[in-house]
Parts: sequence; structure tokens; C-alpha cells
Amino acid sequence: MATSDIKTQALQAREAARAIAQLSTSAKDALLRAMAQALEDDAEVILAANARDIEAAAAKGVGSAMQDRLRLDGKRLGGVADALREVADLPDPVGQVTRTYDRPNGIQVERVRVPLGVIAMIYEARPNVTADAAALCIKAGNAVILRGGSEAIHSNTAIAASLKRALAAAGLPQDVVTLVEDLRRDTILELIQLNDIVDLVIPRGGEGLIRFVAEHARVPVIKHYKGVCHQYVDAPSDLGLALDLLIDGKVSRPAACNALETLLVHADVAAAFLPRAAEALRARGVELRGDDRSRALVPDMAAASDDDYAAEYLDLVLAVRVVDDLEQAIAHVQRYASDHTEVIVTSDPAHAARFVQALRSAVVMVNASSRFSDGGELGLGAEIGISTTRLHSYGPMGLEALTVERFVVRGQGQVRHPDLL
Amino acid sequence: MATSDIKTQALQAREAARAIAQLSTSAKDALLRAMAQALEDDAEVILAANARDIEAAAAKGVGSAMQDRLRLDGKRLGGVADALREVADLPDPVGQVTRTYDRPNGIQVERVRVPLGVIAMIYEARPNVTADAAALCIKAGNAVILRGGSEAIHSNTAIAASLKRALAAAGLPQDVVTLVEDLRRDTILELIQLNDIVDLVIPRGGEGLIRFVAEHARVPVIKHYKGVCHQYVDAPSDLGLALDLLIDGKVSRPAACNALETLLVHADVAAAFLPRAAEALRARGVELRGDDRSRALVPDMAAASDDDYAAEYLDLVLAVRVVDDLEQAIAHVQRYASDHTEVIVTSDPAHAARFVQALRSAVVMVNASSRFSDGGELGLGAEIGISTTRLHSYGPMGLEALTVERFVVRGQGQVRHPDLL
Repeated sequence: MATSDIKTQALQAREAARAIAQLSTSAKDALLRAMAQALEDDAEVILAANARDIEAAAAKGVGSAMQDRLRLDGKRLGGVADALREVADLPDPVGQVTRTYDRPNGIQVERVRVPLGVIAMIYEARPNVTADAAALCIKAGNAVILRGGSEAIHSNTAIAASLKRALAAAGLPQDVVTLVEDLRRDTILELIQLNDIVDLVIPRGGEGLIRFVAEHARVPVIKHYKGVCHQYVDAPSDLGLALDLLIDGKVSRPAACNALETLLVHADVAAAFLPRAAEALRARGVELRGDDRSRALVPDMAAASDDDYAAEYLDLVLAVRVVDDLEQAIAHVQRYASDHTEVIVTSDPAHAARFVQALRSAVVMVNASSRFSDGGELGLGAEIGISTTRLHSYGPMGLEALTVERFVVRGQGQVRHPDLL
Repeated sequence: MATSDIKTQALQAREAARAIAQLSTSAKDALLRAMAQALEDDAEVILAANARDIEAAAAKGVGSAMQDRLRLDGKRLGGVADALREVADLPDPVGQVTRTYDRPNGIQVERVRVPLGVIAMIYEARPNVTADAAALCIKAGNAVILRGGSEAIHSNTAIAASLKRALAAAGLPQDVVTLVEDLRRDTILELIQLNDIVDLVIPRGGEGLIRFVAEHARVPVIKHYKGVCHQYVDAPSDLGLALDLLIDGKVSRPAACNALETLLVHADVAAAFLPRAAEALRARGVELRGDDRSRALVPDMAAASDDDYAAEYLDLVLAVRVVDDLEQAIAHVQRYASDHTEVIVTSDPAHAARFVQALRSAVVMVNASSRFSDGGELGLGAEIGISTTRLHSYGPMGLEALTVERFVVRGQGQVRHPDLL
């Protein structure tokens, strides 16, 4: 049987993974800086390729918001290059010794971080992901297979060509970075089933894409479908602070997965908080949909259905509900949460502790905005994705999530059964 | 559509997982001790059930070694109960804060271990796995779904009944432990595809079972297919030490996955080492199969085929090869390794470092026996399995591998975009 193109590419990536895994930190950092420079040097070619993508999008009648996400210009491309330099500045997780201890028989055990191997990224739209994802995978010692969307194919191809040029100039295999140019769905399907070659697949994009990957992959998948993030305003709590967090969480970037979708308010503070919150949110263009108790406190609020509480609006809409107490808030979140991010605003540390302990979401915030649920904000330096898969990594994923700990044992001839010798 | 039995059971397990996740360490430890006591109290019933399994195995003409693996007696059951008490004595990974730091804006970030949720174990033969796996999952705050083999069904059912009795007596949901009594392959298939309910599946048993699970699962799988463990005897090295490790690695338990399968010897020490090693191994019943250079040094050695170098014999057979140098040894291991465990015997620290760095196996030993590649021996306290999946956990898996780190963030009202307020 002939080996398919995508399998051949993946096998080459696996070979290349061995080379990148053994590179020193300084060599990887120099490579990332050279890649940044290559992107800047190739600006003309990349922007021309991008113009073709924009043109095709316009011809297909793609909306202006989507066109804007796709668009590169000199400044944005400079930002992409700078992001690579920032990854170069991050600490290298590979080779980190996380623990070391001696066993009673004298063997010394080390837990050491090693790269995962070959990582496949499947994503849509923004062409900067091509460079960002490659940089993070490389810094963590991995080869990367990039499968971007058709809408950015020219931009992605041009960016990947620059990255490969930097690899070649450094004497490294170009297969450290592979861009899949065959965009058929069957090719994705084959890629995500190469479980003896590819070590991890990270899908990023719409829920449909992610479900397709999760349903069909044999390679391990780390993903999140959506972020239905809750903010619960407890009694007692600082209502001014609660309002600040609510505005930041809902308004600062409604299309982000860490934006708030549902507000829960303790009945004892609902009358004091909800009318004020509604006014502030409506002044910023937010539509509210609530239960009967909320609607009794806020004039002209639409009724929320069960679907509203399950929705990731990604828009200036907020579902609202008044709850009897902390336990009812917890029960609501347990029912509707996407395991992404939840916020409690409270002045009672015991309530905070109970909320944190009872909920299984990846990130729980006490008196802080849901919008901090982000790799950069949480100090990971950069973010390759967010996981709501409760395995390997849970929540925002940085460089460390692109490695795994193994065991290195040093002895002086210890055996398990000396009686056999 | 009617919900199938296995899905109903899994949903009940998920409910139960919430209860066990929130239990204090002392409550979990008391539960494990009560389970140990219940097993001892129910010894008569469990041993009678086990006798039925042995009888059925004998009637089916199952070999005596397999029958012995299946057999429980008072002493072995006492050992199973004691193993639960040992798990109770282990530190609780749940709630462990692995890192804590402040961000420049004053929010405090904690990484905290939480349970995975619902873990499915699919295994064969030994009925002690039923109790062991349940204990480890419970200690790490998880619910467990156990699907043992048909050959141990009566023993497993009786053991699970005792564990459930202890759960009920502690006022906990019995669904923390679920034994799947419907042994049809379709039921496994459905179980391993319940990816919104089950968080992890760990298959343990023959390669056929594990490949079936890996091929069909939508739930994340952690597994190892086999252990093709290598020992490389370098020049320079202490040949007496090399022989000790070789005998221990090959003879002390040949059916274990961490037993040695292949011996690689540097050409410079082959004449001094191989005849001596062959004599010592043959005296212990080991058959050797080698390449031409090995056969020239050891009389009557059979020729090794490519299949021999890929084989996990699980028996008193050893493949042998003379290599030119360290790099050829590394290339051999890279070609044939199962990513499980490799050993180098060397007196040169630079050679050891190169061997460790070049190989991607989960466990690399320097001057220590491959047989230490085991959760207990490496200080994990106990072992739920061994992973050669380069994700989440790599190598022997203890309690920690049954948890994941999440983020807990505490602030004083910090927002990401104060300009919006």
C-alpha cells in the first residue's frame, strides 16, 4: 500500500522531532529570533499572500469582522514577529527537573520534562496562529504539523515558508514545521488517526471543528468546546467590586471564551445590585435575559430560557438569575458549566472556599475577573490553547503543557532480587 | 431513545464522583480501611466465588499458570486487604498546591490538584486489580468503573459487593465503585465512547485488549502496549555490575513488562562480557538469540531475526547484539523501543548523559536494573498502570496521575480593562 502524503509528512515530522528535541535552549532561542527576522524580511511576500486571502474572502461575501481577523498589515506582522521573540525569552521547560529524590536502596530518581514529540494544530482564521503555535511547539522541543483554514491558506503558506527558511538556515530539518496544504476533510481525518506518529492534536476554532476532531481522533486531543463562564455575586459581598468584575467580564471582549455568559445573584443583594448592574451594562450595549425574580427587579428584561443558561453568546448578551444562596448558585453552575472559568464575588472566605471546592471547572476566580483566565494573564508567558479536558492540562496551556515528565534513574548496580545473583 | 444500562451506570458514577471528590483525606482513608475490613469479613463469600471461577477455568481447559493467577486464598485475600490499607497510608494528592505565585496586578494564582472524575479500568485475569484499582481511584477522589475479564467475574462481583457495602456503611453513594457485569464487547465499546461522562480509560492486559480500546475509544486512553526493554553494556563499564543487572532484569520476573528483552554490548567489551553472561544466563534457563558477532563469541547461540529484536518475549529468552559504539546502541533502541524502559551500564558519565538525552523512553536507568521501572520501586507508593502515551503521565503511574492541576485565583477586584469601568 502506498503511503499517503499526509502520513509521509507526519513520518518526516517525527524524524524532525528527534532533532528539535535535542537542541539546546540557546539554539532554539536563536532559531525563534531568526524566524521572527525571516517574517519581517519576507513581509512583502506575506502581505501579498494575505491580500489574496482577503480578496477571496471578499469575493465569497465573508463579513467584514471575519475579514478583519484574517487581515495582516505591516504592524500586525511586526506583532507576530515580536511574539516569536517573546517566546524565545520564556524559560525552556525541556530538561527541567521537577523532583529528585533517593530511594532507600540508594537509587536516585529524577522527574525530568521532555517534549511530547509531534503536535498537530488544527485551527481556523487568524494567520498569526501559524507562527505562534509553531514557536511554542518548537520552544518546547516539538515538531508541529499545522492545518489552518482554507480562508487563510495563502497567508499560512507564506508564513510557513519563512519559518522553514529559518530552519534551513540553521541547518535544521525543515520538517520541524509542516503546513498541510491539502485541505480536504479526509486529510484531517487521516492526520488525527495517525496515533503511532502524532502525539497530540489541539483543535482551535468553532465548536463544529472541535467536535469533528474529538469524534474522529485516535491521537490524544486536548480541547475546549466553549466557555460558559459564570459570575456569582454572593451575600455578603462588595457590590462595587462585583459590578467592576461584571463589566470587565462581559464587555471587555465578549467574543472571548473567558467572557461572562451568566450572572447569578444572591437573593439578599439582588435588589441592591441588579438594577444598578442592569443600568451599567445596558449603557454599554448589553442585553439582559433573566428569570422571574430578576425581571421583577429590572424593568423590560427579557425572559431567559433554559437554552440561555446553556449558551455561549460570544456577544453582548447576559443571562441573569437570582439564587437563594451559595448552594443554589453552585448547583446552577454544576448543571450548566462548560468546566472553563467561574467567578465568585464574596466577602466571606468560607463561602469562597466552598465555591472553589464544590466546582470542578479548570479556573475558579475569587474576587477577580473571568478575563484573567488566559495563559498570559496567569503567568504562563503564552498560550497554545485552553483545555477543559481533565487530563494532562486543565485550563490555559503554556509551554509546560507541551512537555511531559519522565523518569531518569541513576544507581550503582542496584538490583531488585539480589538472591538470584 | 432509551438510555443504555452502561450509560446509566456511567451517569451514576459521575454523580458519585462529585461526592468522593469532596471527601476529606481522613474520610477517604477511613473508607479504604473499612473496605479492607469488609474484604476480610467477607472472605468466605469471596473465596467461594473465586472457587467458581477456578472451576470454570479448569472446565475450559485453562492452563495452570493462568489458574494460579486467578486463584485467591486466605493469605492472598489478606494481601489484597493490606494493599488497601497501604493506599490509605499514602499522601493524598487532592488539594495539593503545586505552585503559588502573585502576578504584577496583585492576583494570587494557585495550581491545585483535583480529581479527574470518572475513571474506567478495563483489565484481565487477577481479581486483586478490582480492589487495588478501586482504592487508588478513590484515594485520588475519583469514581471508578471496573470492567474485569469473564474469567474472574464471580471473584470480581464478590469483591465489588464488599467494597460497596463499605461505601454504604460510610453513607456514601455505592456508585463510587461500579463493576460492569455485562461482559459483551459492545458494552465495552459503548463505555469507552462515553466521552462526556468518563474522563479516562486505563486498559491493562494483553496487547489485543489494549489495541481494541485504543482503536475505538473516544474517552482519553492511557496505556502501554508492551515493554521491549533494552540493556546496553558500554565501554568502559563495570562488567560484574552489568552481569548483575542483566540477571536481575531478565530472570527475576520474565513475564513483567519491565523485564529485559534485548542485550546490546559494545564491541570492545563483548569478548570479555558475552561468554560470561551467556554462561550465567544459561545456568538460569535463559535462551539466547544473537547476531553474527555475538554468535562468534558464544557457542551454540541461535540466530536473532528482526522479529526477535522487536519481541516482548515475556519469557526466559533474550535477544543479543554486539554494537560498534554508543551511537549504534542508541540507533538500535530508537528503532525497536516500545518507549518503556532502557538501561545503560557505563562508567563514563558523558556516555550516560548522551544515552539519557537521545532516547525518548519513559524511564531511563543508568547502572540500575530495569526491574525498578515500577510505581512502588520508584517511590509512587502504588501503581495504577504504566504509560507509554506521551501525555499526562509517562512511565509508572501512581496517585498523582489520577489527578490534574487546575487554577485557583484570588484577587481584590482586579479587572483586565479598567478603562471600561
